Amino acid sequence: MLSTAILSAAFSSSAPVLPLSNSTALHSSSSVTTHLNLPSLAIGSKCFRANSQRLRVQASMSSSPLIEKETAEAERPPTFLRESDNGAGNESATVRARFEKMIREVQDSVCSALEAADGGGSFKEDVWSRPGGGGGISRVLQDGAVFEKAGVNVSVVYGLMPPEAYRAAKPSTENGDVKPGPIPFFAAGISSVLHPKNPFAPTLHFNYRYFETDAPKDAPGAPRQWWFGGGTDLTPAYIFDEDVKHFHLVQKSACDKFDPSFYPRFKKWCDDYFYIKHRGERRGLGGIFFDDLNDYDQEMLLSFATECANSVIPAYIPIIEKRKDTPFTASHKEWQQIRRGRYVEFNLVYDRGTTFGLKTGGRIESILVSLPLTSRWEYGHQPAEGTEEWRLLDACINPKEWI
Amino acid sequence: MLSTAILSAAFSSSAPVLPLSNSTALHSSSSVTTHLNLPSLAIGSKCFRANSQRLRVQASMSSSPLIEKETAEAERPPTFLRESDNGAGNESATVRARFEKMIREVQDSVCSALEAADGGGSFKEDVWSRPGGGGGISRVLQDGAVFEKAGVNVSVVYGLMPPEAYRAAKPSTENGDVKPGPIPFFAAGISSVLHPKNPFAPTLHFNYRYFETDAPKDAPGAPRQWWFGGGTDLTPAYIFDEDVKHFHLVQKSACDKFDPSFYPRFKKWCDDYFYIKHRGERRGLGGIFFDDLNDYDQEMLLSFATECANSVIPAYIPIIEKRKDTPFTASHKEWQQIRRGRYVEFNLVYDRGTTFGLKTGGRIESILVSLPLTSRWEYGHQPAEGTEEWRLLDACINPKEWI
Repeated sequence: MLSTAILSAAFSSSAPVLPLSNSTALHSSSSVTTHLNLPSLAIGSKCFRANSQRLRVQASMSSSPLIEKETAEAERPPTFLRESDNGAGNESATVRARFEKMIREVQDSVCSALEAADGGGSFKEDVWSRPGGGGGISRVLQDGAVFEKAGVNVSVVYGLMPPEAYRAAKPSTENGDVKPGPIPFFAAGISSVLHPKNPFAPTLHFNYRYFETDAPKDAPGAPRQWWFGGGTDLTPAYIFDEDVKHFHLVQKSACDKFDPSFYPRFKKWCDDYFYIKHRGERRGLGGIFFDDLNDYDQEMLLSFATECANSVIPAYIPIIEKRKDTPFTASHKEWQQIRRGRYVEFNLVYDRGTTFGLKTGGRIESILVSLPLTSRWEYGHQPAEGTEEWRLLDACINPKEWI
Repeated sequence: MLSTAILSAAFSSSAPVLPLSNSTALHSSSSVTTHLNLPSLAIGSKCFRANSQRLRVQASMSSSPLIEKETAEAERPPTFLRESDNGAGNESATVRARFEKMIREVQDSVCSALEAADGGGSFKEDVWSRPGGGGGISRVLQDGAVFEKAGVNVSVVYGLMPPEAYRAAKPSTENGDVKPGPIPFFAAGISSVLHPKNPFAPTLHFNYRYFETDAPKDAPGAPRQWWFGGGTDLTPAYIFDEDVKHFHLVQKSACDKFDPSFYPRFKKWCDDYFYIKHRGERRGLGGIFFDDLNDYDQEMLLSFATECANSVIPAYIPIIEKRKDTPFTASHKEWQQIRRGRYVEFNLVYDRGTTFGLKTGGRIESILVSLPLTSRWEYGHQPAEGTEEWRLLDACINPKEWI
């Protein structure tokens, strides 16, 4: 357990941010765990894996923010990378640069597709940077014709990881007195939550991230770490089997191009992660979710993340086009609002990125853009058995195979 | 740090519940702390004070509920006390019985006053008990003429406190090998959150609780513990100075009958507790809040809690009568909904009773009845300086003296 002081020092000298979310809920400890993976709308948390060990940096809630204040920028810079990372110098610089390029292109293409589908609203953009390097672009479309609230954010983070995390990764050095300095890390990601107005049009969330550590400055021979994480998941209030099937088929198709084990494994991981424990139900109908992926070729995983991110539009836009104008009643809207309440419960109570972000002083508006515009909590609401509402609830309680 | 197994065992043999909430946020650790004080709508958490030490029972989140399942009852029993507590036998039985009587009378009188003020809706009642003793009455008025959602709950809990908590309270026994059994405790409380529809009518929360431990069975001479906790606080979306002043004057008047230091001390405690750290603002305009009160005469504190609980009607109903029919615009309603979003953020992220209740498998509907029927999150919403909305926000950021 690291003291707040240590974490604070480690996270404040260079480029603290770490705008992450939706990390894996592998442990049920309620301690804040500095999951150093990547990101999304929020400040995240990450399991640091080395030699098959899962290492955790734990921080107690601090009374002062752990995160450097961001600065608003008038224009998008060509890159948020440090100059040293931006050439075609070494291999890792190349992956950093290519990942940033990929997520910014995906942000552009997804936002264009959403504006076209909305036919009314347009994205408002906030660009920000941090003194130590890195920055982000937050885009939000609010109260459009089709979308109640749609956020698509990218961010790039340079930070310092507390040395304890790295030391713990090498359990059998000569003695415990070796004190390497903090380990620089790099993180970049895209994250998005899309809430449509029509109760028959589902909410979508996606999030793809890349993480890298450098060797400690005083132990240059020590191993570097890198990994990928992310996922895309669907949260409808009403089930149209063909929509859910289409959505999962697109995910499977992206996965199958790389490894036949990916879809079944990441589908289950998704069902496990988006679990509202106090309700005994998932927030939605899943999709794929993965984290800490580094036991494959790095180029292969970069291609895989790119494929997944590029699958968002074909997975989601056809569903939106089909459902955005479906007639609905006040009672349909009410059920959608109740499910939105569950979305709020998951994000505020369980999502590690969100909860960590709130505790460490990240950019609140970016962290909470994932919350729906409106939501509802009715006392003792229980759909009657056999209704469409009951069918959705059942599928959230008992995850199904859709394909 | 207690293992889940220990806690689980301690909480499952006799009468696990512990339906508490709104405990003091004295520590910022994010670990689940089994605060064994009392209660409200939710399962709570408590600092165990002995010899000026604050002792904490910490539990990691468990995959299985720590709390025994409640059983629905068709009728209200005359008392939820065990038979041994229900006579005029010993002094503590008397306090237990008198406290239960008081909170059930307050529940009746507050519900009657609310139904009268509402003029349309009526309370729906759920009565429940637990096999090991104790139980509760949840009353909810939903979608009335005046109230969007009003919950008034009482509960009585018999439970077992893990022995470590008690041992730690006596730091200098002969050696660490003394292993007393789990310590039985008793807890009872009333808790209520009232959300009106009209954006000019404020939300009210109140919660009064009494807690007692027995001596460990194998150390009958060890000291017993008892304490009182509670408070009443106001959360308007718009400030009417005379309303807030009236509300605080009633709180002060109740306090001043007992100790002139109470109001200023408990007013500040309230401002400190209901703090939404990630926003840097309180959820509302405060009132009074206290916890762990045992350094006064027990009879005096029972009278004080009774006085505070009986002050709810004169503090709140006149404000509701004055504001319930005030004309309002869509923009007023929107601001109210945004402030309701803050209420949700506080309760799901910070309120110890709520978060502990969600993690330990308490009665979800009772725990989350505190959430408003509807709420709203707008990206980047910022009231213009000098507006009424800005004035409310300013008072939440910079707590004021109202009298």
